[in-house]
Amino acid sequence: MRALFLSESGPEFRIDCHEPDETSGESIVKVDLAGVCETDLQLIRGYMNFSGILGHEFVGTAETGPLAGQRVCGELNCSCGDCDLCGRGMANHCPHRTVIGILGRNGAFAERLSVPNANLHRIPDEVEDERAVFVEPLAAAFRILEQLRLDGNERVVVLGSGRLGNLCAQVLNSIGCHVTAVDKHSEKLQLLSELDRGISVAMLDDLPHAGHSENKADIVVDCTGSPTGLPTALRLVRPRGTIVLKTTVAAETQMPHASIVIDEISIIGSRCGPFAPAIEALAQGSIDVRSLISARYQLDDGVEAIEAAGQNALKVLIDPKPG
Amino acid sequence: MRALFLSESGPEFRIDCHEPDETSGESIVKVDLAGVCETDLQLIRGYMNFSGILGHEFVGTAETGPLAGQRVCGELNCSCGDCDLCGRGMANHCPHRTVIGILGRNGAFAERLSVPNANLHRIPDEVEDERAVFVEPLAAAFRILEQLRLDGNERVVVLGSGRLGNLCAQVLNSIGCHVTAVDKHSEKLQLLSELDRGISVAMLDDLPHAGHSENKADIVVDCTGSPTGLPTALRLVRPRGTIVLKTTVAAETQMPHASIVIDEISIIGSRCGPFAPAIEALAQGSIDVRSLISARYQLDDGVEAIEAAGQNALKVLIDPKPG
Repeated sequence: MRALFLSESGPEFRIDCHEPDETSGESIVKVDLAGVCETDLQLIRGYMNFSGILGHEFVGTAETGPLAGQRVCGELNCSCGDCDLCGRGMANHCPHRTVIGILGRNGAFAERLSVPNANLHRIPDEVEDERAVFVEPLAAAFRILEQLRLDGNERVVVLGSGRLGNLCAQVLNSIGCHVTAVDKHSEKLQLLSELDRGISVAMLDDLPHAGHSENKADIVVDCTGSPTGLPTALRLVRPRGTIVLKTTVAAETQMPHASIVIDEISIIGSRCGPFAPAIEALAQGSIDVRSLISARYQLDDGVEAIEAAGQNALKVLIDPKPG
Repeated sequence: MRALFLSESGPEFRIDCHEPDETSGESIVKVDLAGVCETDLQLIRGYMNFSGILGHEFVGTAETGPLAGQRVCGELNCSCGDCDLCGRGMANHCPHRTVIGILGRNGAFAERLSVPNANLHRIPDEVEDERAVFVEPLAAAFRILEQLRLDGNERVVVLGSGRLGNLCAQVLNSIGCHVTAVDKHSEKLQLLSELDRGISVAMLDDLPHAGHSENKADIVVDCTGSPTGLPTALRLVRPRGTIVLKTTVAAETQMPHASIVIDEISIIGSRCGPFAPAIEALAQGSIDVRSLISARYQLDDGVEAIEAAGQNALKVLIDPKPG
């Protein structure tokens, strides 16, 4: 089948990839639309030493299994179900897991992929493919609500307003938080302003370099993917405030250790999230994702799609249907 | 009066320091015994640019104020009581605060000091001076119980078994946690073993460099005061586990950013703690502190005392009473 394959020499479009095998407990899913994520770009730069078919954000149609014939999306962590962490409700951290398009398992930039039945979620009819493909990153934004006990009155700064930052700002705004989105690029901030939902925006260079505690944020969400994100977050968060790290940074970053202790800051890593509230939010239309789509490519032009995603674009989609 | 004064040229013993002024809302306390803390050593190395009389761990006798004639110890953060953070119950983080012997206020390596009445705690008769002088660092260990919701069944590793690490290990052990204390120095670990309270000990070099998640700690408390503490803690903590930073590190430290996000680790800075449970624990004898005393100096030999504390000693005490 046709697929975008990552090998040591980089990503390439291939027409001779093996169709996924039918596996007990898994379903074959025909991919209808897939999205390019920052993690895909990092995988290409060598993160995780992944080799195989890329892609982990997708909507498709189950061809086999209990949801055969239905539109589905799928969680990416495929866990063993038997280990201590799986037993303690931390299947996403199973040490034996494979991860779709990231670790030991082929992904969704292909005509078909195999997905564990337990990972599949049905997509309601009213959520068309162009929005359903955002379930996975939107779920990652909802993960913040699982990790923090928010009363919806918090002052929140979201650093970085690209793909994931935009969704985090919207999710936190949707529960009532006072959200300020911060970016270096005014056009990304404009997308959030134009939603007209009360999300404040600020250019990074316009932020105060130091300020009174009264003006500081209760929570700062770092979606910059940059080593400068954490130091900036520490400048903006109040004593006993929380910094959520949503994006990975391949390099080690410098951490101003003393200020974390003196101000008793909490820093929390945050990764994959719950699909159910993300699907529900899209069905209700409470989160906008269409304005995030910046380009759509055929699978055959997948290398070009990935390059476009690396050029400061928002969400680039890949359509695996034959052109 | 006699005092140990820190100026730009370093710490020196002086006989001509001003007696503290009587101030509204504050009490004059005659110091009976004081303890040298890691922070004192860092102040001497230039941390906080402090100039004045050092010392913030003390027990004394109130000479004026509502507790006149009684044995007291005192919390070190002196807050304004009027600002937003004070109003929100975060007086220890008041941006206008002075801190005894650390920031804008003279300390306890002296015959007398002035302490806000609100900061004073009465010491029960059964807690003699040699133990009462540990109230402040013991309160810092109890701070962990305020910050984390522990059920007392957690696997905890305490990195660094010096002054503060020893107390953190004992406090976490006292609520039922399965504590392993780790250090480079076997004699410090031996102190904890000899308590015979079920605290496990391990030499740093004997720890596994990587391990299955099943064996990892729920919580790692970093009391090393070293830039290597955090990377070691990240190696030992389980996914979704918590790292508590108890000691400041003056230098910026390298942080393996990606593993914090992927494993959804929480890192929490932890500073000063509640005096009441610390005094109660000493009164009940549930925490041993006497074995931590490694030397006792007269105030006139204060410079020597500080040098001794820097030589890998445990708790060095300073006695301001005329010799």
